[in-house]
Amino acid sequence: MKALVFHGPGRSSWDEVPDPGLRDSADAIVRVDTASICGTDLHILKGDVPDVRPGTVLGHEAVGEVVETGDDVRTVRPGDRVLVSCVSPCGRCRFCRERAYGQCHGGGGWVLGRLIDGAQAEYVRVPFADLSLHPLAGAADTLEAVLLADVFPTAYEVGVLNAAVRPGDTVAVVGTGPVGLAAIATAELFSPGRIIAVDLLPTRLEAAKRLGADAVAQTTEGPEPLVDDLTGGLGADVVIEAVGTPESFEACTRMARPGGRIANIGVHGRPVTLHLEDLWMRNLTITTGLVDTRTTPTLLSMLAAGRLPAASLITHTFELDQMEEAYDVFSRAADTGALKIVLGVPTRPLVAREETNGETGQGGRSPCTGPRTSSVM
Amino acid sequence: MKALVFHGPGRSSWDEVPDPGLRDSADAIVRVDTASICGTDLHILKGDVPDVRPGTVLGHEAVGEVVETGDDVRTVRPGDRVLVSCVSPCGRCRFCRERAYGQCHGGGGWVLGRLIDGAQAEYVRVPFADLSLHPLAGAADTLEAVLLADVFPTAYEVGVLNAAVRPGDTVAVVGTGPVGLAAIATAELFSPGRIIAVDLLPTRLEAAKRLGADAVAQTTEGPEPLVDDLTGGLGADVVIEAVGTPESFEACTRMARPGGRIANIGVHGRPVTLHLEDLWMRNLTITTGLVDTRTTPTLLSMLAAGRLPAASLITHTFELDQMEEAYDVFSRAADTGALKIVLGVPTRPLVAREETNGETGQGGRSPCTGPRTSSVM
Amino acid sequence: MKALVFHGPGRSSWDEVPDPGLRDSADAIVRVDTASICGTDLHILKGDVPDVRPGTVLGHEAVGEVVETGDDVRTVRPGDRVLVSCVSPCGRCRFCRERAYGQCHGGGGWVLGRLIDGAQAEYVRVPFADLSLHPLAGAADTLEAVLLADVFPTAYEVGVLNAAVRPGDTVAVVGTGPVGLAAIATAELFSPGRIIAVDLLPTRLEAAKRLGADAVAQTTEGPEPLVDDLTGGLGADVVIEAVGTPESFEACTRMARPGGRIANIGVHGRPVTLHLEDLWMRNLTITTGLVDTRTTPTLLSMLAAGRLPAASLITHTFELDQMEEAYDVFSRAADTGALKIVLGVPTRPLVAREETNGETGQGGRSPCTGPRTSSVM
Amino acid sequence: MKALVFHGPGRSSWDEVPDPGLRDSADAIVRVDTASICGTDLHILKGDVPDVRPGTVLGHEAVGEVVETGDDVRTVRPGDRVLVSCVSPCGRCRFCRERAYGQCHGGGGWVLGRLIDGAQAEYVRVPFADLSLHPLAGAADTLEAVLLADVFPTAYEVGVLNAAVRPGDTVAVVGTGPVGLAAIATAELFSPGRIIAVDLLPTRLEAAKRLGADAVAQTTEGPEPLVDDLTGGLGADVVIEAVGTPESFEACTRMARPGGRIANIGVHGRPVTLHLEDLWMRNLTITTGLVDTRTTPTLLSMLAAGRLPAASLITHTFELDQMEEAYDVFSRAADTGALKIVLGVPTRPLVAREETNGETGQGGRSPCTGPRTSSVM
Repeated sequence: MKALVFHGPGRSSWDEVPDPGLRDSADAIVRVDTASICGTDLHILKGDVPDVRPGTVLGHEAVGEVVETGDDVRTVRPGDRVLVSCVSPCGRCRFCRERAYGQCHGGGGWVLGRLIDGAQAEYVRVPFADLSLHPLAGAADTLEAVLLADVFPTAYEVGVLNAAVRPGDTVAVVGTGPVGLAAIATAELFSPGRIIAVDLLPTRLEAAKRLGADAVAQTTEGPEPLVDDLTGGLGADVVIEAVGTPESFEACTRMARPGGRIANIGVHGRPVTLHLEDLWMRNLTITTGLVDTRTTPTLLSMLAAGRLPAASLITHTFELDQMEEAYDVFSRAADTGALKIVLGVPTRPLVAREETNGETGQGGRSPCTGPRTSSVM
Repeated sequence: MKALVFHGPGRSSWDEVPDPGLRDSADAIVRVDTASICGTDLHILKGDVPDVRPGTVLGHEAVGEVVETGDDVRTVRPGDRVLVSCVSPCGRCRFCRERAYGQCHGGGGWVLGRLIDGAQAEYVRVPFADLSLHPLAGAADTLEAVLLADVFPTAYEVGVLNAAVRPGDTVAVVGTGPVGLAAIATAELFSPGRIIAVDLLPTRLEAAKRLGADAVAQTTEGPEPLVDDLTGGLGADVVIEAVGTPESFEACTRMARPGGRIANIGVHGRPVTLHLEDLWMRNLTITTGLVDTRTTPTLLSMLAAGRLPAASLITHTFELDQMEEAYDVFSRAADTGALKIVLGVPTRPLVAREETNGETGQGGRSPCTGPRTSSVM
Repeated sequence: MKALVFHGPGRSSWDEVPDPGLRDSADAIVRVDTASICGTDLHILKGDVPDVRPGTVLGHEAVGEVVETGDDVRTVRPGDRVLVSCVSPCGRCRFCRERAYGQCHGGGGWVLGRLIDGAQAEYVRVPFADLSLHPLAGAADTLEAVLLADVFPTAYEVGVLNAAVRPGDTVAVVGTGPVGLAAIATAELFSPGRIIAVDLLPTRLEAAKRLGADAVAQTTEGPEPLVDDLTGGLGADVVIEAVGTPESFEACTRMARPGGRIANIGVHGRPVTLHLEDLWMRNLTITTGLVDTRTTPTLLSMLAAGRLPAASLITHTFELDQMEEAYDVFSRAADTGALKIVLGVPTRPLVAREETNGETGQGGRSPCTGPRTSSVM
Repeated sequence: MKALVFHGPGRSSWDEVPDPGLRDSADAIVRVDTASICGTDLHILKGDVPDVRPGTVLGHEAVGEVVETGDDVRTVRPGDRVLVSCVSPCGRCRFCRERAYGQCHGGGGWVLGRLIDGAQAEYVRVPFADLSLHPLAGAADTLEAVLLADVFPTAYEVGVLNAAVRPGDTVAVVGTGPVGLAAIATAELFSPGRIIAVDLLPTRLEAAKRLGADAVAQTTEGPEPLVDDLTGGLGADVVIEAVGTPESFEACTRMARPGGRIANIGVHGRPVTLHLEDLWMRNLTITTGLVDTRTTPTLLSMLAAGRLPAASLITHTFELDQMEEAYDVFSRAADTGALKIVLGVPTRPLVAREETNGETGQGGRSPCTGPRTSSVM
């Protein structure tokens, strides 16, 4: 089969590799119909994730059809159309029993495209298939569903649920790459009073508005005065960090009101300074986290009910074998305007595409949209 | 009357000052029978709290008798024996309505001995008396009750409740000054599986054991290996920071297991480094906070029921007019072994004193117990 | 002044009575601009609420202007436009300190129009004014705001929050009188997957659809098969009882899935049968409650932001001195189609009225809409 | 092998039956060292549980050694000493994913000794072994551990956790059979202010006192005046129903304070009357439930740490082949004073037995202790 193989920092290619086979009675083999690229894949390519050894097939977001299952797989069978989740929970360790699947100590967790071959391929072996694969209802749109492999549960669990967004809250979302935008979309599920989006790129702030942001601020102008203005100087009830830099995190801690909650989603490579000399008495709650995908069934049902605007995040689509071109477009997001890129033949039509129509289905030939940004996650 | 007056950094004295009078219809005047000294008072004396202007009477922990009340005071009246809480909530602002009394925006909060004259005096004017004074049942022991003005609610709310201690948890308490010890005592209310206490001073670790710590570690030897040993390398479920230094806070973040909760109680004067490059994916919850004293009624009822070992924290008692001597003993805690010092004539006998008998009632003449420490809060 | 006076079961009239005056330093006098009638007022008129003595002015829902305040009122002053809440919390008792204002043991709670003269009058004396009156922002619409005196916080607190509605939930609301409709509107704040409305009256079910119900069932046909159909036989995650009869409550317990939550809002006059022989092992949570109005500030801010469709509940408007006519229309709801009736000169225009235009502003002359119902609460 | 076989209402015997074998790759075969009898077994014997077909081996509480495992069992292996839990979760269905194992829709849940052969036998086949078996640490006492198969998690999850017992609470436990006593013991984990135990039998109330009850009331005298006395007429914060009769449940609803929580553990055979005409406005929370055993690992670690007084519940021990005699003693609890009866050779010594020494190890020859009771659950 064909697959995107990591060959060490800066190098990857769409290679012919052996088809995967079952290795464990809990495995399933899935034929990949649709895959997508995550900002984390770019980190891996840069060499930032030393766990990933050369020769590994990348990718942890896919939709496809089950073609083979191990003897112990009980909830899916060949022919089932499924979402392949980025997290594969063993279901037995103390973390999985508490639904902290992302922290699995039983050989699972985030392993696809990291410790084992991933889903940017024609076929993928998925361990612990009963809890890692989610059957898709007939009506589910493949292009949208693939966004529930990682980006939506990450935004919802690590951002919105960790921060306990409540009706009426003022929510600031710092960083409006795909995960930040999904945080805006899923924060809306709790009817906040107002969402303030912050980013470097005007085009992303436009996308933020379409997804429900009530006010936007460019990072360069400093979002804090806007937050102060809108909250009478008090600060935001909730701040969601979706960038991953020290500057961004520190700004988040300054934007929160006394008693506020700060949820970090950003993947950080450096330490940050926490100004406890100011913050120790402000009743703040700061959370960090890796996605558990425990909310994926709920998100899938909401997608099916038309209550998740997942399609809005898709800016480009490609054939699966255009993987290298897709990576190129995705890696130059500031120039290409790329948010989420989806590859593969959709097995169901994507109905509501009005918002993204102009930018999709054209092999990534959308125009340059702005300066280079660090906000792709 | 006599009162301990702050005269600027490094200077205070037990002076004759005018008696306080009612200024607002919600005020009460309380005759102070018993007062205590808080680590924060030492910070004020050093000049670390610029809010406090020279001329201010210090102190925010007292028990006494109401002698006069404003027209709008409805729940206490002259003759009532009361606990004077360190926080005076207006009861009307948005923070008080949510029980975040410590964040009061309506003129209250922690004002006693900071923005207005405090309780290390023969009389004190208490604003918002209905919510700031807590009537004491006949049986309540004055010496113990005064510890519920600040140290116990602080440890319980900002430490134990913020960290959501649960049955079976491994809890690490870093810093075993009075607040850290009270955190151990109130963590016990939730039946953790094991409490690990960390401090520089062996004498304090002995006190920690008496209050329920199952294991102790000296800071100098590094508590992390002990935590690892006891938790199979996983880390503690809960870590409570009760020191207030960057080193201590960083150690706390290293001791927590994935999914752990870190509650900061320490008063910090400098920024700390938060290693988000390691912690971003560990599902941590970090909280900060100022006491609200919303749990004071519950703690008082538990004290009355004999379920709070408050007396164990009292190492020295003095007459009220020995205030300067008491400050001297308290400020040399590493030498004197001082934990909590209580001043004034107890209006009820302190019954269960066996544990601390040897060290109390002697005007602070307990022997030197160890090297200098920074762990007094 | 003029006021609606209760003269014993079945008798009330719009009488000339003395103006109210301050009696306590925490009182305020409010000139009533707008008032509304609650289903509970009908219960009082029938003699079902023996607390209410003849001679009492009825009414506990109003918007108006403060004209006089007692010495201890600090947060409102003459000239302020305010919402008069149905609950007047003392703010000092153990229940008020825990925000259970409706259970106030300090002389407050629901007293207006029950234990003291109420708000269906030209002026009303409001006790504990600081916590009972809510200042209205300039933009707030008076006609809509009056619905936040009782019906919206009741539906939200006792229904939606008690039942912990979550994104994706299937929510059944049984009884779509004003409170049931407000429960639908506020359940929407948490993005349930699907809301199923149940009532006797087709016109009310139409209103339910306008407010967000996804499916409706007439009581007479039995709503349980519909719930079963929509949930694969499992039952609803949340069931909200807003009728107040044994039959309705029992149906609610049958509609809930294992692990479901049943929130009772209905005012019951008779015991109900709880089939614990079936339910003991179904992990149900059943809640009851009286409104606390602790969420009123949040609801007001959401109303100001255009996120609460309060106007949809208003079917008729009258002048204040048409009180008797208004009661007549309200008491014949099945014939008149009355949901909420609002009286008084609006001090601000009601902008978004498209949905209810045809039925409002005409002095209650809407046509007969169906058979007699017991679902007015 | 030998096993206790149900032969229809009123009939059971210790018969020779075929040894169990593996039927599914997730099964394990356990050699039973210790088993116990549950009140539910008596219900089955009476014919109250029509699910149970004649020929079924009874019993759902055991400790033993794994002797064989299916291919898909990953967390235990032959030779492991394990607790056999009363609930066998499939781990894959929507209920198991939310940890509601008792509601399993995937073929598991409570099946042992009900839908499949149980554990009152020399060997037992345990389905879904990875989540149904809990490895025992070397130090765990077998006699005590077997109480964690059902009675302790039931009391803790369905009683104490559902009722959210908090420090300082007044907790009333109605019914002090084994489950009620375990509710007292596990309520203590949250340091309630006071526990009030209610039962018909003085001997059981004595046991309640030993486990931590602060006050006791005989049912016949009416416990409500005692609760009123102790709470100033307010009622209990928490009421736990552990009897299972309409009278008991109704008394529980009368004992709760406004805002109180009532957790039903009792197994009910008849409907109860819920006085919503009084209770609708009292802010009550009523819960029902079947045990999930999700807390078993925590309880096991607390048992190992000496923090669960499980041994106190054991009144009689027998050899495994004295099963019929044990049933006889257990079924005449009012006469024999039986609480929990444990059968089988303990594989580890029971160390701390001082409290029960007089009554155990004697083959059930404890004296008649009182009148007949319905409080065995």
